[in-house]
Amino acid sequence: MRGAVIHAPRDVRFEDRPDPVIVEPTDAVLRTVAACVCGSDLWRYRGIQDVTAATPIGHEYVGVVEQVGDAVTTVKVGDFVVGGFLHSDNTCPVCRTGMHANCLHGGGFDGCQAEKIRIPNADGTLIATPGQPDGDLIPSLLALSDVMCTGWHAAVSAGVQPGSSVVVVGDGAVGLSGVLAAAQLGATTIIAMSRHASRQAVAKEFGATHIVAERADEGLAQVRDVTDGIGADAVLECVGTEEARAQAVAYARPGGMIGLVGVPHGDLPTDELFWSNKGVRGGPAPVRAYLPHLLDLVWRRQIDPGKVFDVTLPLSEVAEAYRAMDERRAIKVLLQP
Amino acid sequence: MRGAVIHAPRDVRFEDRPDPVIVEPTDAVLRTVAACVCGSDLWRYRGIQDVTAATPIGHEYVGVVEQVGDAVTTVKVGDFVVGGFLHSDNTCPVCRTGMHANCLHGGGFDGCQAEKIRIPNADGTLIATPGQPDGDLIPSLLALSDVMCTGWHAAVSAGVQPGSSVVVVGDGAVGLSGVLAAAQLGATTIIAMSRHASRQAVAKEFGATHIVAERADEGLAQVRDVTDGIGADAVLECVGTEEARAQAVAYARPGGMIGLVGVPHGDLPTDELFWSNKGVRGGPAPVRAYLPHLLDLVWRRQIDPGKVFDVTLPLSEVAEAYRAMDERRAIKVLLQP
Repeated sequence: MRGAVIHAPRDVRFEDRPDPVIVEPTDAVLRTVAACVCGSDLWRYRGIQDVTAATPIGHEYVGVVEQVGDAVTTVKVGDFVVGGFLHSDNTCPVCRTGMHANCLHGGGFDGCQAEKIRIPNADGTLIATPGQPDGDLIPSLLALSDVMCTGWHAAVSAGVQPGSSVVVVGDGAVGLSGVLAAAQLGATTIIAMSRHASRQAVAKEFGATHIVAERADEGLAQVRDVTDGIGADAVLECVGTEEARAQAVAYARPGGMIGLVGVPHGDLPTDELFWSNKGVRGGPAPVRAYLPHLLDLVWRRQIDPGKVFDVTLPLSEVAEAYRAMDERRAIKVLLQP
Repeated sequence: MRGAVIHAPRDVRFEDRPDPVIVEPTDAVLRTVAACVCGSDLWRYRGIQDVTAATPIGHEYVGVVEQVGDAVTTVKVGDFVVGGFLHSDNTCPVCRTGMHANCLHGGGFDGCQAEKIRIPNADGTLIATPGQPDGDLIPSLLALSDVMCTGWHAAVSAGVQPGSSVVVVGDGAVGLSGVLAAAQLGATTIIAMSRHASRQAVAKEFGATHIVAERADEGLAQVRDVTDGIGADAVLECVGTEEARAQAVAYARPGGMIGLVGVPHGDLPTDELFWSNKGVRGGPAPVRAYLPHLLDLVWRRQIDPGKVFDVTLPLSEVAEAYRAMDERRAIKVLLQP
């Protein structure tokens, strides 16, 4: 089969790779129906995170089960399945608290921008859809593999509830998903920080009540204008840079919570957090914990998180997908084998 | 009148000071019934925090109202009152979220280890007891001025709820109050980290189910032994040193919360927090938010937080009170004018 391999910064190739096989009896092998490029893949593409050897890349996918190991009981050959960017057994003490991203027997996997994918811990990672999905549902199902659940995790971690005021830092696919999550969780003021017209438009479709294009002091002033002068109850930090994290802390009101999902590339102002009674919580999203609810919402067409995909390309053009995301010509690229 | 003044590290004197007077129409002046020394006063006493000039010291008190300004409506001359270590107006947008410690018009005040005290924002800071208290209630009422509400804030910030497993780092008066708070909030496993027999005894009285005297790896192993092998749902950090903060993070399970109330004197391992999905929240306690509930519990003798006072001295011996706390001969010293 063929799949994407990153050889060095800005060098992603679509090339032959061995067909994945069942290694553990808890594995499944999928035929990929759709995959995509993640903002976090760009850390390596841009050379901010090292690439020490040629590495299969990609961690978002939906597909049809082709093979299952002997121990797999909840998905079967032919099922259309959705799963997260980390695998989990869904049974360990950590999973039982809902924190599947930190499963004691789980882990990450790369190489999902490929025609076939091996999924460890299939029972604890994958969920089959109620039937074969209509084609127009594929983008939203694919969004559940990472960005929608990650935006949801930001909102849950920040304690968003009915009536909350929320600021979303980051207008990538995760930030936009965070807007949608905040709206679903009942936030009544949702401020999307965005300078880009196409992203502002999706933010509004997803439920943003305000768009703030400015940053630093002017952005803060605009946030305070619509939050009683004190800042927001909840801030979703969906970028990860030190600057974005500091801004997220500033946008929160005293006692507010910042939900962190941007992969951290900078510190947090911890003394400021303490003296202003602001809290932080978050990390890699426990996709498996959120999947049942969010898959139900997608299946019943209550939410359409697939709107974050504004470009579709053949999987063979994965290198162009990276370029489009890197240059911010695309919010998120869907790849079709 | 006379009161405590810190002149330099290890130099606290009981000396003549001007009688406090009504400055703002929202002020009250109290005749002090009891005051005490706070662990946070020791930062200056030990020279860790600078003393740049002779400064009246102390921020915990109960007393009887002697004078009120023209604008004060909720307490009157003769009332026995309890109030927090920060004043607040109880009406600003921040107070309305329950975060009185960060009141837009509030602040701190020093000089409460004195025969009389001026309280700004009296209506938003003080609460009168339902009647004159019996003498044996005084220590518990005094504990509400800071340590009990601070321990409560640690537990609330860490999200303690019925069934939670909780670790309390710090066996000073705040840590012990945190044990009591966790028990009141329904925690079923409460691990007090303590090496001192007298403090262990109070922790057990307050509801600790386990005592761990070890620290570092051995302490962590013992915590995990009683928390499904993964750490506690909630950790209350009641010290503030970098070492204590790092241990607190280690004791939490993936996805757990650390409630921070120890005055920060060191950083937090923020990358570890992120990758393990652990959160932190806390800061100066919003005493006024918690007072109504906790005062009711004390008044009805449902809780006895005054047990943290193991030494009582005349206010004139305040210098000895500092020595006893500094040398850990006392958990907490109650001072009587």
